[in-house]
Amino acid sequence: MANKQNMLEEFEMIGWIQQQAGSSGHLTLGIGDDCSIQRQQGDLDLLTSTDMLIEGIHFQPEWCSMFNLGRKSAAVNISDIAAMGGKPQSLFLSIGRPKKVSDREIKEFITGFLTEAKYYGAALAGGDTCRSPELLTISVTVQGTVPTGDAICRQGASCGDAVYVSGTLGDSALALQMLQQGLQPGSFLAERFHTPTPQISLGRILSQRQFATAMLDISDGLLADLGHILSSSSVGADLELQQLPLSKEFRQALATDASVIDLALAGGEDYELVFTSPLKDLSDQVGRICPITRIGTITQTPGIRIMQENGTPYRCQYDGFDHFAQ
Amino acid sequence: MANKQNMLEEFEMIGWIQQQAGSSGHLTLGIGDDCSIQRQQGDLDLLTSTDMLIEGIHFQPEWCSMFNLGRKSAAVNISDIAAMGGKPQSLFLSIGRPKKVSDREIKEFITGFLTEAKYYGAALAGGDTCRSPELLTISVTVQGTVPTGDAICRQGASCGDAVYVSGTLGDSALALQMLQQGLQPGSFLAERFHTPTPQISLGRILSQRQFATAMLDISDGLLADLGHILSSSSVGADLELQQLPLSKEFRQALATDASVIDLALAGGEDYELVFTSPLKDLSDQVGRICPITRIGTITQTPGIRIMQENGTPYRCQYDGFDHFAQ
Repeated sequence: MANKQNMLEEFEMIGWIQQQAGSSGHLTLGIGDDCSIQRQQGDLDLLTSTDMLIEGIHFQPEWCSMFNLGRKSAAVNISDIAAMGGKPQSLFLSIGRPKKVSDREIKEFITGFLTEAKYYGAALAGGDTCRSPELLTISVTVQGTVPTGDAICRQGASCGDAVYVSGTLGDSALALQMLQQGLQPGSFLAERFHTPTPQISLGRILSQRQFATAMLDISDGLLADLGHILSSSSVGADLELQQLPLSKEFRQALATDASVIDLALAGGEDYELVFTSPLKDLSDQVGRICPITRIGTITQTPGIRIMQENGTPYRCQYDGFDHFAQ
Repeated sequence: MANKQNMLEEFEMIGWIQQQAGSSGHLTLGIGDDCSIQRQQGDLDLLTSTDMLIEGIHFQPEWCSMFNLGRKSAAVNISDIAAMGGKPQSLFLSIGRPKKVSDREIKEFITGFLTEAKYYGAALAGGDTCRSPELLTISVTVQGTVPTGDAICRQGASCGDAVYVSGTLGDSALALQMLQQGLQPGSFLAERFHTPTPQISLGRILSQRQFATAMLDISDGLLADLGHILSSSSVGADLELQQLPLSKEFRQALATDASVIDLALAGGEDYELVFTSPLKDLSDQVGRICPITRIGTITQTPGIRIMQENGTPYRCQYDGFDHFAQ
């Protein structure tokens, strides 16, 4: 959640860049979604996404092993391919390396990166290595493919669609909060934070069977990422708080501190998928791939309304997301 | 030339990464050349390259406008597509932005970036923006295409081939040296440093007409980049010092300081093309696209030998390149 105070500004800047960049014949989709989509010859579209990770902003080296940092650097990018319903193919890795990082550490990082890449059938196809004055700086570009026209974008949700999320929410943000407080998260929460799981198989079945109308991966938090789907689709959503899928470990923390629920709503770095579908019983059809939970419904009224079990509205405490509610 | 002391180490690390990454079915060429080459459906190969630029390592903000920094960030990546004989198609731009960089400066940077991209027919198709604690950090990925099998790699030079370079050498490094000494380079030299010209048209004609056996762009300096061609092709080269193409402005500096010649040999950031060809009179055939100069011949004996007009060998003063000479 480190970036929240800048998010509005970031979105505005991206909007400005989008306007300046304009469109291009070969681009089905340019700036603004999880991936760009480029038309290719044959029956596959090319998906591309890129992410930068800077020490102190996106990670603290003292919190994780270099192996896991390598895994996560690959995973968060592969997750962008999952969010379009695609199959990852190639990764490109640039490392800005300060003197304090040893050869052994770089090799551990690369080994973790390759472990994750190979698991998803993606090859490390290129990159760049350079010196960095102080901070370890990583940039990853991922390319993937999806059958022409099958990519699931953020725009496409319709009034009446069900809103689904995969897995459980808030685990990663809870682990981060504990680390920030000097506490050691348990192994499940730590794993959810350090080695998120890109939902490639779920994404692919949703695109192949055309189950989803809009989809994103949850990197900035459910409310922010669902907010992107809603504003791109010119719709709103009603969510049911008690439907949020929460892990046993998260529920334990919630039992002693009710405000922890906001980490599931706005915490970020879940790398689960949030998607919309006209189908109301999708759990039966894709549950064997990955557990999914229906958490709400798309509405004509813009904004997100979160209802509690007692019928009263719930308001998330985190700023920076209120602009989605109206 | 800021990176020289680390170069051997960097090459070794890249070699290790290359070994670990292994090969993959869809990759015609992975790590180690200007671009990776991926087989696609249809009759085009996909070229991809990525570069990271960190403030204080690759650029000093006080030396250039943000507009020119944007142009250069695009240009040095597009140059990698030129070096394979390809056509640039899409650019992906990640910016790690410290607080000191204003919105206006970021917009100037983007405007410069887009100016360069559009000139070469490439679209800005995606990217990432994030905070950076202190240093402006830029990462660019470029994708391009080339007819299947036509890409020109670093491996392919044969004994007896002529060695050619495009344009003039050393201008950029001379400008950098002047800036480092607190001097103001004249407009020609400054332009060569701040806004290098990717040789896309030359690269394309060389690949289309299959004139070149091996090619790279000169980013690390002629000796280093030619060295890559030689070691990949298991050959050596004899160069003629008096044949190096030098600009009027460079010759003026050379007239007062003979050691300046080493900037043309090892200075880097020329972003001209160095290539080998069995054809000995190529200037007539491609000179209308871009001036090229034959500077030597590929030999069976490994290493680079530089001969002076008087028939004695010349030894470049810069360390870090001697491992190419034997």
